[in-house]
Amino acid sequence: MRDTVDIQELVERRESYRSLEAPFYNSPDIFALDIEAIFGRNWIFVAVEPELPEPGDCVTVEVGGASILLLRGDDEEIRGFHNVCRHRGAKLVDEKSTTIGNIVCRYHGWTYNEDGELILAEHMGKDFDKSCHGLRPVHVRSVAGLVFICLAKEAPGDIEDLAKTMEPYLLPHDIRNCKVAFQSDLIEEGNWKLTLENNRECYHCEGNHPQLTVPLSEFGFGFSPDEVDERRSADVAKYAEDVKANHARWESCGLPSAEEEHLSNVTGFRTMRLPLMWEGESHTLDTKVASKKLLGDFTDAKLGGLSFWTHPNSWHHFMSDHVVTFSVLPLSADRTLVRTTWLVHKDAIEGQDYNLDNLTQVWTYTNQQDADLVRLAQLGTRQPAYRPGPYSQFTEPHVEAFCAWYIARLGDHFAKPNAQMAAE
Amino acid sequence: MRDTVDIQELVERRESYRSLEAPFYNSPDIFALDIEAIFGRNWIFVAVEPELPEPGDCVTVEVGGASILLLRGDDEEIRGFHNVCRHRGAKLVDEKSTTIGNIVCRYHGWTYNEDGELILAEHMGKDFDKSCHGLRPVHVRSVAGLVFICLAKEAPGDIEDLAKTMEPYLLPHDIRNCKVAFQSDLIEEGNWKLTLENNRECYHCEGNHPQLTVPLSEFGFGFSPDEVDERRSADVAKYAEDVKANHARWESCGLPSAEEEHLSNVTGFRTMRLPLMWEGESHTLDTKVASKKLLGDFTDAKLGGLSFWTHPNSWHHFMSDHVVTFSVLPLSADRTLVRTTWLVHKDAIEGQDYNLDNLTQVWTYTNQQDADLVRLAQLGTRQPAYRPGPYSQFTEPHVEAFCAWYIARLGDHFAKPNAQMAAE
Amino acid sequence: MRDTVDIQELVERRESYRSLEAPFYNSPDIFALDIEAIFGRNWIFVAVEPELPEPGDCVTVEVGGASILLLRGDDEEIRGFHNVCRHRGAKLVDEKSTTIGNIVCRYHGWTYNEDGELILAEHMGKDFDKSCHGLRPVHVRSVAGLVFICLAKEAPGDIEDLAKTMEPYLLPHDIRNCKVAFQSDLIEEGNWKLTLENNRECYHCEGNHPQLTVPLSEFGFGFSPDEVDERRSADVAKYAEDVKANHARWESCGLPSAEEEHLSNVTGFRTMRLPLMWEGESHTLDTKVASKKLLGDFTDAKLGGLSFWTHPNSWHHFMSDHVVTFSVLPLSADRTLVRTTWLVHKDAIEGQDYNLDNLTQVWTYTNQQDADLVRLAQLGTRQPAYRPGPYSQFTEPHVEAFCAWYIARLGDHFAKPNAQMAAE
Repeated sequence: MRDTVDIQELVERRESYRSLEAPFYNSPDIFALDIEAIFGRNWIFVAVEPELPEPGDCVTVEVGGASILLLRGDDEEIRGFHNVCRHRGAKLVDEKSTTIGNIVCRYHGWTYNEDGELILAEHMGKDFDKSCHGLRPVHVRSVAGLVFICLAKEAPGDIEDLAKTMEPYLLPHDIRNCKVAFQSDLIEEGNWKLTLENNRECYHCEGNHPQLTVPLSEFGFGFSPDEVDERRSADVAKYAEDVKANHARWESCGLPSAEEEHLSNVTGFRTMRLPLMWEGESHTLDTKVASKKLLGDFTDAKLGGLSFWTHPNSWHHFMSDHVVTFSVLPLSADRTLVRTTWLVHKDAIEGQDYNLDNLTQVWTYTNQQDADLVRLAQLGTRQPAYRPGPYSQFTEPHVEAFCAWYIARLGDHFAKPNAQMAAE
Repeated sequence: MRDTVDIQELVERRESYRSLEAPFYNSPDIFALDIEAIFGRNWIFVAVEPELPEPGDCVTVEVGGASILLLRGDDEEIRGFHNVCRHRGAKLVDEKSTTIGNIVCRYHGWTYNEDGELILAEHMGKDFDKSCHGLRPVHVRSVAGLVFICLAKEAPGDIEDLAKTMEPYLLPHDIRNCKVAFQSDLIEEGNWKLTLENNRECYHCEGNHPQLTVPLSEFGFGFSPDEVDERRSADVAKYAEDVKANHARWESCGLPSAEEEHLSNVTGFRTMRLPLMWEGESHTLDTKVASKKLLGDFTDAKLGGLSFWTHPNSWHHFMSDHVVTFSVLPLSADRTLVRTTWLVHKDAIEGQDYNLDNLTQVWTYTNQQDADLVRLAQLGTRQPAYRPGPYSQFTEPHVEAFCAWYIARLGDHFAKPNAQMAAE
Repeated sequence: MRDTVDIQELVERRESYRSLEAPFYNSPDIFALDIEAIFGRNWIFVAVEPELPEPGDCVTVEVGGASILLLRGDDEEIRGFHNVCRHRGAKLVDEKSTTIGNIVCRYHGWTYNEDGELILAEHMGKDFDKSCHGLRPVHVRSVAGLVFICLAKEAPGDIEDLAKTMEPYLLPHDIRNCKVAFQSDLIEEGNWKLTLENNRECYHCEGNHPQLTVPLSEFGFGFSPDEVDERRSADVAKYAEDVKANHARWESCGLPSAEEEHLSNVTGFRTMRLPLMWEGESHTLDTKVASKKLLGDFTDAKLGGLSFWTHPNSWHHFMSDHVVTFSVLPLSADRTLVRTTWLVHKDAIEGQDYNLDNLTQVWTYTNQQDADLVRLAQLGTRQPAYRPGPYSQFTEPHVEAFCAWYIARLGDHFAKPNAQMAAE
């Protein structure tokens, strides 16, 4: 049905360092392609382990049209299945989060065990072979407690490169010994790629994120060197020294701080550790830690912020006292779910060690501000006068990296369209 | 526009005793085909005569995209017309139910009589021929008070077989001397075929319908013989005896009780009389009659339940004291209206002979439970992991009969696509 | 994507003096064509000058998919631009009406002056050419204070004929010295052409607009001569004399009163001055002026009503004391915005010179009545039984003129499809 020839031409003629042509943000056909070729083939960040800490804990997530059930088994492993009964197709677990024994379909009682095997199906007669009717599995990979899934038959192998590189950065924050303090679901009125593009630059931060930028340097996210006069030139040099000193301090605490950029990998990612300026400790309105109970073995609150971005759908900020993760889940060509999860030490007590408002305010404001920008961008890209515009090489290189990655994945898809999902 | 080749292939490759492929539940193209080939060609149950008891009484129903006006004339006959003015196409009667003299268009006053003839059209000039601008009629057939319509130019003739077979079963309940005690419109979030499939089996009843199943035997709706152990085998035998005894009793009262199954007719139908267990008289929470004023000439409250199902869109339950009818009207690929009508004797007085809550509770609960199951089924069938699953030969043969009938009708349509509606 | 061949056939086979075939009212493809070929090429009435009286005043309007920003510059000229940033396409002005200095994009601060020139874009590097990134302009033409825009590259030149003909009619009402007393946005549940067709006849008025018709003669909007009996024949003659006497009086005051009909021009229009009957002065419930402060240099309240209609999207009524303008803006195949603006003398004081309820009541009622008729018409035209019906040559010639104009424009479009919008 979908006019793949036209889309292929759009993919081929994409100009680098320019925003995408309008159909990439508006066309239901390209949205369907994104779900198939991007969200159906790549590693997608969907949850954190503290969302299902105990055996029997189960969460469901909607990735494109697919509902996926994640279940922690008695062996502590997290398994993933398509959330669809093999009898008449009913959705099995309707709740976003629950605790179960076996997986029982409400419709006619068909029952699956934690390995997805059908173990009970009444009235099907003695010739019915239960072993052919198990749940369809999906790939699950937890990286230091961040849960990624892949719906493809064969998942990209380079998730292991990501894991190997990132674990030294992430493990000190000890996500598995965190708890979910809060989770918010915000629907942005824009295409998921506008959500991502917006996330991949801080060019818009100064004018739009007064709360977020309090402890951030204006030089932390790129700038045009020819706009730096003598006075600011001194500021730039001072900032560079400051960063250097911080890096030395972090490394001495065993915290790796080198920037890692692997954005053209199939499982593309990037990480960077940035100082929080002045007396800044964390992303709160007063820039002090939100939770008195620091993560892992940390004793120093002033560890700056570690950021971690993955293609195609996540970003994460790790501080000494809390972690914030963001999972982007497309709903339609012009609607996108941004799920934000705040994690604190599992022993931190609300009202005593941390206050929920204080913990969540900066990103609650920032998410809403971003949602408004994404809405304005979507409103613009759907207009007849919209044409791809230029990205700044100084402040928008990671927007370009995201678009280039996206276009490369569509290119892969057209080159090899028949890589099918595991459910086939 | 619609890709008929693809749909034809889906029709041809349908495997028996398996649920349909996903596009049958999700595709807007197949939905449009259903409206044309199923709801545009077959007899559709839309109302009961007590909804329009007097001359001038008028009801409107929406069947697919068509609004149909039913009007009882001075000669007591019910006629049906497309509810569209022949001038500039305005909808004529906007209300669901009203009483009128002639049919007057609000827009410019064009007026039609009860035969649909245009009798007044101002300002059209002396050369204007009113006789060419009458309302477009639809076929109407009342079977013992159950009103069926057909939008096709030529309606399937075998409605007469249905009438002949069913009237002996239905007439004793004397629908024409009933009144509508209550009517509810429930929108199910699923394809109309999932609503029908759900209705055509009681495999799901035990786990989902605690109110409905109180007076029903678990053996009344099929079971796998190899799952019956010795103890239950005795129960089965006892139930069979019980049914046999009841049949004899019913026949002695002049109530036919043989099961009639004509599900592969174009106008397919089935009827069955089932005992209500223990002291059961009717479908109420306490299983006693809801209305003291029994229907027709009945004097015995304990007549069990007569069920009647028609392809493609209705089912009905007749008890000694009340009747419940269900009309299924598709709204879109994933939304379906279920209209439920409760009938009691026209002389029964609310609050005295019957209590409305008591009358309607069982099916209000049951409808909502079914709506939830249909929603879960729809959510599953729209997922990429959905594949047609197996029906039980013991508990789901009538689901299979419905699907086979549906597929046969689409086959007929592709063989003879130009049978046009009367309005052409 | 759009099946232009089918649409072309529909255009070619349109029968005159019959309503359009159903797809013209329902098809999303034809809706997209309407936006491109009608609203993308013709002069569209979108605002009145009093909506942006001062330099820096800005209003935005949505025409089809395009958001257009109108800005009054320091030189008092009104300019129009596509409301889309040339960087990453964000909508620039989100408000319906505001006052600004330069046009600043909220996203990354790109700044444009009142000529649409990009004057600030940070971080773009020294090789970036701002002069290539100005806002895309649209044509703007104010006719006596009524603001028309055209999104096409080349706007139809015959707007000048309209201006030349209409200015002598309009200028005496002195719109530029009016103020907006009230503006209402009403969404009609119908295709924009049904809104226009409804506006182009008063055949429906007597049965539907009790408030509007108080000061109107039943003979003012056409009638079938063969339905006029002897008594009414005398009334007709008396009405004709009355009109003639009024025309003489208006001309003597310098108010042109000849009917002008140029409905087959590309920029088609028509105007007519009608007496208000009996003691009628204005369109209010008591038919007296709503505002004591008469417009322009008027001293006589009893000037009747001047009506002005333009293809494809406006109508206007001018009285001695106030003006009402209507702008029709399509939202989707079956939803249309009708924006109504009431103007009074800029020095009139609310509560003293006029009462807002009294000023707006007649058209608030009438708009709602029309919206209901348009809804019924849309409900009818989407039904399978709908067929184009006949227009009255006596009461619906201007409905025919509108449809003929519309069909001619689509014909032009198919003959010369590549006339592109200015933004290209």
